[in-house]
Amino acid sequence: MSGDSTRTGVGNVVIGQSGGPTAVINQSLVGVIEGLRGDERVGKILGAHHAVRGIVNDDFIELQDIPQDRLDRIAQTPSAALGSSRDKPNREYCEKIFDVFERRDVRYFFYIGGNDSSDTCRIVNDLAKEHGYELRCFHVPKTIDNDLVENDHTPGFGSAAKFVAQAFMGDNLDNKALPGIKINIVMGRHAGFLTAASMLARQGSDDGPHLIYVPEVGFDEDKFLEDVDRVYSKYGRCLIAVSEGIHDGTPVEQPNGKVEPTPMAVKLAVEQGHHVEYDSHGNVQLSGSGALGDFLAVHIKKNLGMVKYPHPTEPGKTTLRVRADTFGYSQRSFAGCVSATDQQEAREAGRQAAQAALMGDIDGSIAIQRDPGEAYRVHYQVIDLAAVAGKTQHLHMKYIVDNNNIADSFREYIEPLVGKLPIVESLRMPQPVEAGA
Amino acid sequence: MSGDSTRTGVGNVVIGQSGGPTAVINQSLVGVIEGLRGDERVGKILGAHHAVRGIVNDDFIELQDIPQDRLDRIAQTPSAALGSSRDKPNREYCEKIFDVFERRDVRYFFYIGGNDSSDTCRIVNDLAKEHGYELRCFHVPKTIDNDLVENDHTPGFGSAAKFVAQAFMGDNLDNKALPGIKINIVMGRHAGFLTAASMLARQGSDDGPHLIYVPEVGFDEDKFLEDVDRVYSKYGRCLIAVSEGIHDGTPVEQPNGKVEPTPMAVKLAVEQGHHVEYDSHGNVQLSGSGALGDFLAVHIKKNLGMVKYPHPTEPGKTTLRVRADTFGYSQRSFAGCVSATDQQEAREAGRQAAQAALMGDIDGSIAIQRDPGEAYRVHYQVIDLAAVAGKTQHLHMKYIVDNNNIADSFREYIEPLVGKLPIVESLRMPQPVEAGA
Repeated sequence: MSGDSTRTGVGNVVIGQSGGPTAVINQSLVGVIEGLRGDERVGKILGAHHAVRGIVNDDFIELQDIPQDRLDRIAQTPSAALGSSRDKPNREYCEKIFDVFERRDVRYFFYIGGNDSSDTCRIVNDLAKEHGYELRCFHVPKTIDNDLVENDHTPGFGSAAKFVAQAFMGDNLDNKALPGIKINIVMGRHAGFLTAASMLARQGSDDGPHLIYVPEVGFDEDKFLEDVDRVYSKYGRCLIAVSEGIHDGTPVEQPNGKVEPTPMAVKLAVEQGHHVEYDSHGNVQLSGSGALGDFLAVHIKKNLGMVKYPHPTEPGKTTLRVRADTFGYSQRSFAGCVSATDQQEAREAGRQAAQAALMGDIDGSIAIQRDPGEAYRVHYQVIDLAAVAGKTQHLHMKYIVDNNNIADSFREYIEPLVGKLPIVESLRMPQPVEAGA
Repeated sequence: MSGDSTRTGVGNVVIGQSGGPTAVINQSLVGVIEGLRGDERVGKILGAHHAVRGIVNDDFIELQDIPQDRLDRIAQTPSAALGSSRDKPNREYCEKIFDVFERRDVRYFFYIGGNDSSDTCRIVNDLAKEHGYELRCFHVPKTIDNDLVENDHTPGFGSAAKFVAQAFMGDNLDNKALPGIKINIVMGRHAGFLTAASMLARQGSDDGPHLIYVPEVGFDEDKFLEDVDRVYSKYGRCLIAVSEGIHDGTPVEQPNGKVEPTPMAVKLAVEQGHHVEYDSHGNVQLSGSGALGDFLAVHIKKNLGMVKYPHPTEPGKTTLRVRADTFGYSQRSFAGCVSATDQQEAREAGRQAAQAALMGDIDGSIAIQRDPGEAYRVHYQVIDLAAVAGKTQHLHMKYIVDNNNIADSFREYIEPLVGKLPIVESLRMPQPVEAGA
């Protein structure tokens, strides 16, 4: 943006929702609308249909007159009500955006999204400066991956973590009732936060997940077999959380130009002769396939099941019950599994962006930061777009135990974000059963 | 059982939970305990650890003294608190069961389970008769597949259907936000009830699932492509529900002796050189793998994506966003997604079994039957074990439309079983977008 004072004339607003949807991204949309409404400097509030694509196509919906009760229902609805996109605008794309902004006298731009989306926001803002076009540009954070730097956590994560925790709570009990080895693949390309959330399912000492593999450390297929064998020999069952982004730790230049290890899921797809997809940001597509889980299940069966574990009822035979589930899109969009804290913070992040945009000559990204002290409290801070754009926050190494588990101390971090979980009750004290039972 | 009058002496009780767990199978367990407690003819109430396997191993837990508040918490906990098993007792196995029953003076046997479990119950009961051993034998229904004959529906189904409905509600919105083709694989080996439950996600005329494939009818891979192409051309997106049990309709003799079509998932596993697992009932294992969904996604990409749909931003290129998720075990055990009606009925089915066993010289299975009339009401009936054992209830053909969808009239049947779903709200009227967008 340019100019050195608070705007006094009336200007229009564009809001977009970008990247993978979450259960609370509509809370932020409604928060922005609520933060803007009633201010005399705000003209039309235009929702861009399918993010930047809606801007260049001049495809908008007016949002300023929606009644509050309808806004409240929209806020509670999962996924992006405006529609989303994974487009990353280049210079030409952005020129088109400005044509539309100028023609429509758009002076406030709010872009709700993740890591890549904050980068889009930064590029649009830089172009506004170059054009000498007065534009307040705000990024509102959103990602179930929880991988934005400068943030204690991001809207969308708490609800996705709640889904993962509740799925693992149930699956731990399922695995206890019908013992075997169970692998669940959890979303998170580069950051292990969501996979680590599975640890919330542990209540008793024999509860799973017994092993948790995150992409912050390398994954070793042989060590994995040893881990599984050790747990199974102890408990007669084994519940495992695996991030979709696990890799062998060897850095290689990727199609997006970054030098980082190739995810095992990608290697498998190539080996199996499948077409590997990349989005327009050069990021590989990992979700929407069960290949990684299936590979790990077969890997266990071939190397442990057939050689080591006697069949429980048929003498001379060996067997091992191994299953893999890939949680998939339900993690980000399941209707009816939200964290109340996540909802409230997502709404507030939107309001804060609106208020900051109206307050002065600033642009930036809203960051959620945790206050020190026993009780959980956060504050919202405006940070530079460049500080958050294109960077990835990782799970702190202090939480990663033996490259195969998550420390109990992670509970302090994550519990307030997820909130209350269902109560479960067991009939008996934890009782290890013999391997092969 | 033998004898011709109501028991007057004190006898002990054994309760077991068998087969795949559900979100409400512990409600039935608690229902049986509540129905028995306080009756002077009831001695110890013994829970068999891991079903029939616990009986032959003399591995029990005493249940008669658990305080009511703890029972209530156990009832709300998903999965089988006693542990489960898929063992199908043969004659030798049953002799062992009677040794234990006789030694422990067990006179009441309650077995909570599905189709195969009711058969187990029948065999045990027949053996009791042959031995002249007085035993009241009751089967309490449970299965997320909803495939027990003589029942309008079964405990466990409503909660699993709620999970499927909420997952599809969210995924429909996700697919609307980021358009493409999305396949979700739903549990249900022989019966399409759970897959059909996905239709509850439809609220507006363009809402998915747009296509629903159940195992009651044959699946044609070419027709599937035509269906998907037609929907995608109309809406610019396509959400699909597919039962894990779909097949090409050609009957073949199976390892369990039944003559029925081989599931496509099994054919794929064989083609891919994977070991195909059968349980001790001779039933093939379908869940716990993403292979079917992945196959269908690749099938679409190869035959539609690469030839028909132009890339939205890169001229000359073709593309199609296709993803597949396999819902997996969360359908039966996710903590915190239950139908209130399902909970209440599962509890009542357990109580009814206990009361029937104490009332007279009868054995049987508790069946839930729906009363005629506008308002939803059910009654519980004791039916012969032989009437339900080993038989499979299918989705009525009147609900299956064009071999690729479920009729709106199914809503009347299923809505009362699932209960209230989350409210979702859209920003705009349904608006078909162009294919390839």
